[in-house]
Amino acid sequence: MTELKDYTAYIDKSLNELNFPSKPSELYDPIRYFLNIGGKRIRPILTLLGAELFGCDKGSAISQALSIEVFHNFTLVHDDIMDEAPLRRNQATIHQKWNTNVGILSGDVMIIKAYQLLCQISAEKLPEALEVFSKTAVEVCEGQQMDMDFESRHDVTIAEYVEMIRLKTSVLLGAALSIGAIVANASEKDKKNIYAFGQNIGIAFQIQDDILDLYADPLKFGKQVGGDVIANKKTILYLTALTDATKEQREILKQLDNEKNIELKIKRTRQLFDQLKVKESCKERMQSYYSQAKENLSEIEVPENNKRKLLELASYLMDREI
Amino acid sequence: MTELKDYTAYIDKSLNELNFPSKPSELYDPIRYFLNIGGKRIRPILTLLGAELFGCDKGSAISQALSIEVFHNFTLVHDDIMDEAPLRRNQATIHQKWNTNVGILSGDVMIIKAYQLLCQISAEKLPEALEVFSKTAVEVCEGQQMDMDFESRHDVTIAEYVEMIRLKTSVLLGAALSIGAIVANASEKDKKNIYAFGQNIGIAFQIQDDILDLYADPLKFGKQVGGDVIANKKTILYLTALTDATKEQREILKQLDNEKNIELKIKRTRQLFDQLKVKESCKERMQSYYSQAKENLSEIEVPENNKRKLLELASYLMDREI
Repeated sequence: MTELKDYTAYIDKSLNELNFPSKPSELYDPIRYFLNIGGKRIRPILTLLGAELFGCDKGSAISQALSIEVFHNFTLVHDDIMDEAPLRRNQATIHQKWNTNVGILSGDVMIIKAYQLLCQISAEKLPEALEVFSKTAVEVCEGQQMDMDFESRHDVTIAEYVEMIRLKTSVLLGAALSIGAIVANASEKDKKNIYAFGQNIGIAFQIQDDILDLYADPLKFGKQVGGDVIANKKTILYLTALTDATKEQREILKQLDNEKNIELKIKRTRQLFDQLKVKESCKERMQSYYSQAKENLSEIEVPENNKRKLLELASYLMDREI
Repeated sequence: MTELKDYTAYIDKSLNELNFPSKPSELYDPIRYFLNIGGKRIRPILTLLGAELFGCDKGSAISQALSIEVFHNFTLVHDDIMDEAPLRRNQATIHQKWNTNVGILSGDVMIIKAYQLLCQISAEKLPEALEVFSKTAVEVCEGQQMDMDFESRHDVTIAEYVEMIRLKTSVLLGAALSIGAIVANASEKDKKNIYAFGQNIGIAFQIQDDILDLYADPLKFGKQVGGDVIANKKTILYLTALTDATKEQREILKQLDNEKNIELKIKRTRQLFDQLKVKESCKERMQSYYSQAKENLSEIEVPENNKRKLLELASYLMDREI
């Protein structure tokens, strides 16, 4: 999407204008800090594009876009505590820079702030926007819980994994778009389709994330290639391998879990995945969700030209190398 | 209030009917468990009484009452993590019974659920109810942050302390009542007064809490008398003593901070407080907020009989021994 940078800059600028109070500083400094760490701001941009798709100016949905971004950041702050992550986008996480209590409480304020921003919508659209938002917020928490549950389970199926990423990641993309569509008075049918478009793009996006983790170009990728393999994460690559493997190959995969030599572990895992054509299977799965998303978008009854930016953004997300 | 038990039972029953999903169980079991621990349910009862005060049936505000209770429990779950509290109402806290991650995430779902319950209100009242609710929710977090900040500060004034308890405790009582009043279509003036009534009762209630901690009858009090003294908490008793003390007495107070013999520590603290008539000063301060609350209620333009339950509940809260 040629205008991506402009949209990101617009979100960044609007976030900066949110004007959180100065005190208590241990509550608001972390929020300001975290919202400033950056990122591509894909989710709030989807809200703006959702409004534009149905003929509205992007400014008409800016508060709702910021709501989505603040909510997303709330989930990151609390997830980082739960995952004991020291870094987020190469910067110290809140609980690392301050402490866990600060992370919990400033996260709490962020979700309330997200609701306050969402509510800056005309009264007749408020109930529907809130319904989508709260339903999605609960689902994202359910996805996070499933993700944590998976860590100690050894019988996770591909279907369960897809359901987990649908909840943890994809529903928020669907909600971001459909809240933009609500602002723009889209029809029921169009709202359903734009939500489905977002959800399918989200699943494809997450599969792509898993693939990139092992197959990205180390020179372009911002973090260590193979991080998921090192952490024994049950990604779609791993679950696909497990499903397609022979008994012997499954045994090798199990042994690799305990391999201490990281380079060797990544190399052997990749060899096994190559034998099983895991990357190709996952790419196919990703393409299938991507195609479904494009199908959803094609059914939306607006001039084709209105769809250009969304199609470009989707294509950018699917072809990205980082 | 003669009917208090009936109201508590009505809230308990309605909470039980909320029907949280069964899965993920690590997310919803803790919520069910915590909401079942019990308590007098003062806050949601205030919402019901707020609606009844203005001529509505209590059933008309039940969802909003539950919203207030679920929100309150969300704050308890997260506060318990931050305070490392093992027990709540003599039962294991969530982070103790499960773990911190479970406490964070189930708390997060509770605040979203609180919003969902609040939203079960007619569309024209929704924006106002949400505005009061979100503003209050932020304030409660600010109060919790101030409370944590006070732990490492040695220059907290009585005014700052009162502001902290206003935010952490009292605004929620005001909001609980005024959301009931919103459901019942109260006038702007009446809504302001019922909010002020709740806020003043809340401050008086918290001062009473501090007094009871040291001066309750050990046979009636559910927990250790003097717990705040043992923990060196800067309660209103402590701050009042500090304000009224001579230089020598202030020195004694300081030394008592490090006294390891708990019985002696409590005894000496109480002796010093008695010399300074700390209990009497605090009772007077409490009475002043209580009087102000009754003044607020007297200005509300409804039949006097409508005010009976609220006055009885307030009197019950002020005269309680636990």
